[in-house]
Amino acid sequence: MRKNAVVLLSGGLDSATVLAIAKNEGFLPHTLSFDYGQRHRWELEQACRIAEKTGVACHQVIRFDLRAFGGSALTSDIVVPKGRDVSDAGIPITYVPARNTIFLSFALAWAETLGSSDIFIGVNALDYSGYPDCRPEYIAAYQRMANLATKAGVQGGQNLTIHTPLIQLTKAEIIRAGLALGVDYSLTSSCYDPSPDGRPCGTCDSCQLRRKGFAEAGMRDPLQN
Amino acid sequence: MRKNAVVLLSGGLDSATVLAIAKNEGFLPHTLSFDYGQRHRWELEQACRIAEKTGVACHQVIRFDLRAFGGSALTSDIVVPKGRDVSDAGIPITYVPARNTIFLSFALAWAETLGSSDIFIGVNALDYSGYPDCRPEYIAAYQRMANLATKAGVQGGQNLTIHTPLIQLTKAEIIRAGLALGVDYSLTSSCYDPSPDGRPCGTCDSCQLRRKGFAEAGMRDPLQN
Repeated sequence: MRKNAVVLLSGGLDSATVLAIAKNEGFLPHTLSFDYGQRHRWELEQACRIAEKTGVACHQVIRFDLRAFGGSALTSDIVVPKGRDVSDAGIPITYVPARNTIFLSFALAWAETLGSSDIFIGVNALDYSGYPDCRPEYIAAYQRMANLATKAGVQGGQNLTIHTPLIQLTKAEIIRAGLALGVDYSLTSSCYDPSPDGRPCGTCDSCQLRRKGFAEAGMRDPLQN
Repeated sequence: MRKNAVVLLSGGLDSATVLAIAKNEGFLPHTLSFDYGQRHRWELEQACRIAEKTGVACHQVIRFDLRAFGGSALTSDIVVPKGRDVSDAGIPITYVPARNTIFLSFALAWAETLGSSDIFIGVNALDYSGYPDCRPEYIAAYQRMANLATKAGVQGGQNLTIHTPLIQLTKAEIIRAGLALGVDYSLTSSCYDPSPDGRPCGTCDSCQLRRKGFAEAGMRDPLQN
């Protein structure tokens, strides 16, 4: 019998690849998306389509509103930077305070009710935007905390693992890994500021990192026609 | 100028006391409650009244639905145990998987946008229900993780502190501390399964712990007329 896993699925390129990896490793994926007041809600429809096409045990969307706190171009009226040099040092204004901490916490809740000890997240510490909650030391600290947070942590039961298969890959390596596993990148959405029908802006950080990745992988991005 | 703090406020006896303590220590409290699909939603109205009466900078309620995952008598159709021996070992069915981890994660998000490095939570490891996410080792691990999760964690800035002023107090000591600070316990709601107009059942674990606390403090519970 396949082991249950909770896979955070944003609808982007990275998490779609992680889902394919989890499935390929023999897990039965339960995918989790968040409607958190993000500017780029289009990704939620794509996440649903990716889950359906990949084949998962259950796909759920949790809703809350991070616009209550603001502090990010993705959850407030702050303009999404376009044409920025993505190699610039510093944490850009698209950083959403504590977002991965919140996402992982809901994944932990679901994992505990499923009796699962495996959570997958598509964080990446190479071709990324410098977000603090994508770094290996953060993930290691989260895993230590999570192993004290649950019933299993008290009862000395199974150890929870936060799987981060992409953390040391370049965007090009992620794309190659995904294509080898049959990921349909035409279903993924990376743009922070897409048009209402989902067309990417082409110039935000996330669009730039995606284009660079496909170029370095020597592949055509199916979203670029 | 008073320092901003985020105070988790459930509307119960413990968190009302913590709010008074934070204020007494000179912080400017920003209170945070959660409408998470709990059976005892009455506590949310009480949290609002407590925040108003105590005087806070801002009170916010974040909404999400933990019934999506279930696994607890507080978020599913599982019956709340009544008349249980609360000194029994083991984690009761009222435990909500990862609840404090989720709550603290939203508090972390708000703290970061406020530029605050202080979060208060009313966890207690003595007169409590054996929940894993109330233990000192869990809180310490959460604080370590949180200090790696944010911009300040990358930039080597201020250290975030998770304040747990009640963690080593008995319920009677909590009540005495609160009364000394003028907490109005008639506004608090402890029951896991109150009537629609907020009357406590008197027999769930939480009602039992509250009654024991007031008895040991030699005080009258204003909710008991």
